[in-house]
Amino acid sequence: MGRDAFAERYQRAVEWPLTGVAVLFLVAYSWPVLEPGMAGSVRRVCSVATVVIWVVFAGDFLLRLGLARRRMRFLREHVVDLVVLALPLLRPLRALRVVTAFGQLNRRAASLRGRAMVYVVGGVGLLGFTSAVAVLDAERSQPSASIKNFGDATWWAVTTITTVGYGDRYPITGAGRVAGVGLMLGGVALLGVVTAALASWFVEHVSRQEREEADLRVQVSALVEEVRALRVELRRTPSEPPVVGSVG
Amino acid sequence: MGRDAFAERYQRAVEWPLTGVAVLFLVAYSWPVLEPGMAGSVRRVCSVATVVIWVVFAGDFLLRLGLARRRMRFLREHVVDLVVLALPLLRPLRALRVVTAFGQLNRRAASLRGRAMVYVVGGVGLLGFTSAVAVLDAERSQPSASIKNFGDATWWAVTTITTVGYGDRYPITGAGRVAGVGLMLGGVALLGVVTAALASWFVEHVSRQEREEADLRVQVSALVEEVRALRVELRRTPSEPPVVGSVG
Amino acid sequence: MGRDAFAERYQRAVEWPLTGVAVLFLVAYSWPVLEPGMAGSVRRVCSVATVVIWVVFAGDFLLRLGLARRRMRFLREHVVDLVVLALPLLRPLRALRVVTAFGQLNRRAASLRGRAMVYVVGGVGLLGFTSAVAVLDAERSQPSASIKNFGDATWWAVTTITTVGYGDRYPITGAGRVAGVGLMLGGVALLGVVTAALASWFVEHVSRQEREEADLRVQVSALVEEVRALRVELRRTPSEPPVVGSVG
Amino acid sequence: MGRDAFAERYQRAVEWPLTGVAVLFLVAYSWPVLEPGMAGSVRRVCSVATVVIWVVFAGDFLLRLGLARRRMRFLREHVVDLVVLALPLLRPLRALRVVTAFGQLNRRAASLRGRAMVYVVGGVGLLGFTSAVAVLDAERSQPSASIKNFGDATWWAVTTITTVGYGDRYPITGAGRVAGVGLMLGGVALLGVVTAALASWFVEHVSRQEREEADLRVQVSALVEEVRALRVELRRTPSEPPVVGSVG
Repeated sequence: MGRDAFAERYQRAVEWPLTGVAVLFLVAYSWPVLEPGMAGSVRRVCSVATVVIWVVFAGDFLLRLGLARRRMRFLREHVVDLVVLALPLLRPLRALRVVTAFGQLNRRAASLRGRAMVYVVGGVGLLGFTSAVAVLDAERSQPSASIKNFGDATWWAVTTITTVGYGDRYPITGAGRVAGVGLMLGGVALLGVVTAALASWFVEHVSRQEREEADLRVQVSALVEEVRALRVELRRTPSEPPVVGSVG
Repeated sequence: MGRDAFAERYQRAVEWPLTGVAVLFLVAYSWPVLEPGMAGSVRRVCSVATVVIWVVFAGDFLLRLGLARRRMRFLREHVVDLVVLALPLLRPLRALRVVTAFGQLNRRAASLRGRAMVYVVGGVGLLGFTSAVAVLDAERSQPSASIKNFGDATWWAVTTITTVGYGDRYPITGAGRVAGVGLMLGGVALLGVVTAALASWFVEHVSRQEREEADLRVQVSALVEEVRALRVELRRTPSEPPVVGSVG
Repeated sequence: MGRDAFAERYQRAVEWPLTGVAVLFLVAYSWPVLEPGMAGSVRRVCSVATVVIWVVFAGDFLLRLGLARRRMRFLREHVVDLVVLALPLLRPLRALRVVTAFGQLNRRAASLRGRAMVYVVGGVGLLGFTSAVAVLDAERSQPSASIKNFGDATWWAVTTITTVGYGDRYPITGAGRVAGVGLMLGGVALLGVVTAALASWFVEHVSRQEREEADLRVQVSALVEEVRALRVELRRTPSEPPVVGSVG
Repeated sequence: MGRDAFAERYQRAVEWPLTGVAVLFLVAYSWPVLEPGMAGSVRRVCSVATVVIWVVFAGDFLLRLGLARRRMRFLREHVVDLVVLALPLLRPLRALRVVTAFGQLNRRAASLRGRAMVYVVGGVGLLGFTSAVAVLDAERSQPSASIKNFGDATWWAVTTITTVGYGDRYPITGAGRVAGVGLMLGGVALLGVVTAALASWFVEHVSRQEREEADLRVQVSALVEEVRALRVELRRTPSEPPVVGSVG
């Protein structure tokens, strides 16, 4: 079996398992944060699990890099994956891999717009939850922080992603601010996709109306052509019956 | 009479009465909040009215579910209605049913854009008012709340729906924050519809100009075709009768 | 001279003078606010001027209403003008009439997008200045207000119209909040027009590229038609004169 | 060599050197701000460098003005350059000249959308960095300022350009507020370009689908034409040679 065929088979084989691993990561990462009174042993299991999952993701990345024909190009195209793997600060973003599952579940959706909406709404929901957990993890131990429980963290995430930003809650640590920047960029994407989907929907309906009018015009002009062709044909008839006299 | 015909007749029959009931709900829900010094008996009437109206809406939902051919699909398509009916926290959203009345009043508006604008502007106004009432209802009794009268609540609703979010007023209770999230999503929709309507209007006018130019080009090329046909015809004439002389 | 002809002549005649009066209003309204140490007599002149200008605008409105063929329709179409004239709280908006001057100066701008941009950018600038003056006028005398000089008022206006809304400055009076709501709506319009103009520009250029490709395809298919016609003609030639040989 | 040819040659010759000078300016302007403990001699070198670079930019502007055929038009088209050169307050914006380098590096990008995205994302990044430096420079010495280190300045820049605006950090000096206004306008542009690129992408894909359907319809109607032509031809055949029999 050639390298390309193997690479493709590998991709298909690990698609769902890796999505499952990403869900596990989401649980192992967020559960200890949401449950401060968790038993030490469970907390240790979760901690080990996030490290193991990191190894799995890193192994998958290296394997795909090894299978790629043009490695520099692979690195250039997967630079975000690499950064998320390499920087501990961006660790929560590893959970975003779950978003690819929406693509799997959503294959039947015919329209491009529908699929983009599912990706963005799903991704925004996931990003909101992950960022709320990350900010809570980072801020909770700070005495002067304003985000101290999950309710506040969620409220902060919603006010940030909609770009409202009251400022009643905001992160003060580096890790919390990184989560905030992710949310803000997600908010710009959310506004962009909602607006763009609406705009394209309006444009499509307006142009459909106009195309229907245009079709009518085309048919009318086709009719004109036919009539003209008939006239030409009739004009040639001198060697045929005198019906030509009535051409007008 | 078949089930489908009955379902359709039922829909048409209750359209306006249910809109009226939603208006009643809006009054019965918001009046006691806006008038804290209201007599206890009137307050009780309003309280009973909101429960009765909930029963009416729930009955309508169950009847339509019973009449639907494919019930799972009906539930999937009306999941928002179900959630609004089931969760007491989302109770104020029941008043949004009044929005369907805009569709009724607006049937003569030809353009899709115009109708979308009416829905969103009307819905945003209604959402703003309902959220202001809901947040006032939730926050007023909290000692540390910043929203204590209807003026502040309206101001907060406007700063939220336009995504400005000064943060001089913001909800601190769960119910108030739920109202806030609704307003923020409404704000994203407002920005999206205004922008999309403008974009589609620009695109339409630009493409109209271009189509007019294109029409000219089509006519010119039709002329070219005619001339070419004439040339072909003239080339053939030596062997044909002089009737061709009358072609011009 | 008929009523319609007179109405049209009147409109043209007062277009520029009324724009000048609106500029005068802007000066008479904002100068006393910006210059707190102004002599009492000048202040009185400005105060009288704003009243006189109101009378002029009201007279113009009534005259146009009287000249209109369908008065209810005129009122429906000019309801904003009527509200701005009738409510003292919206008095600063009378200065917005200056915006119509942009339309006059801008008549040579060919593109719809360009004209919309000029209106919105000009209108947003004017709205920002007027709102900053109005908020300063309303807030300055309040002990607990955060907007006490024109620099702060301008900064507040910019943070509001771009929907950033830090919340370091915000109005606390009813009149100041009304100015704020105007700015927020102006901000939604600004974002909408900028985005829509960019979107329509992208769409136009993309579709132009595609149309050029389409034109090529049309020409190729025209060529195909010609060749096919030639083939048909040649197939017929056995029974016709050799002159056809020169068709190529 | 004519004046126009010289002007064009000059433009090409200084394109890259001036971009390098702008990078130097960025370094000489931001380094002393970011490194408060810098030795006095290095600080003086940086200070002199910014003045020298200003002279270089001013000389380039005057030379291009001198070479322009229509000077008033040149001034009108380069009014932003002139303002940035003339006002010391806008000095940080001189670094934005680096953005033109993105255009150079990006020439191979085929699509208009791609190029616009690169310009805006690159420009927004540069604007964010420059504004963070400028605000830090302006605010640091103010006792009551909330932006006192580069981390806070960057966080403020991100919350401003995404129009979130918590208000936990905000400028209080004139120079800092000017940087803030630049960021807010950049944020409106960022949102606009992201949304517009998405909208045009949706519109393009939808219209491509529809065009493919339309192409099919065109082919079908071409087939109809062919069949009709055949029918016409067959109707004529009685009086013509049997060679026609081979048309099918």
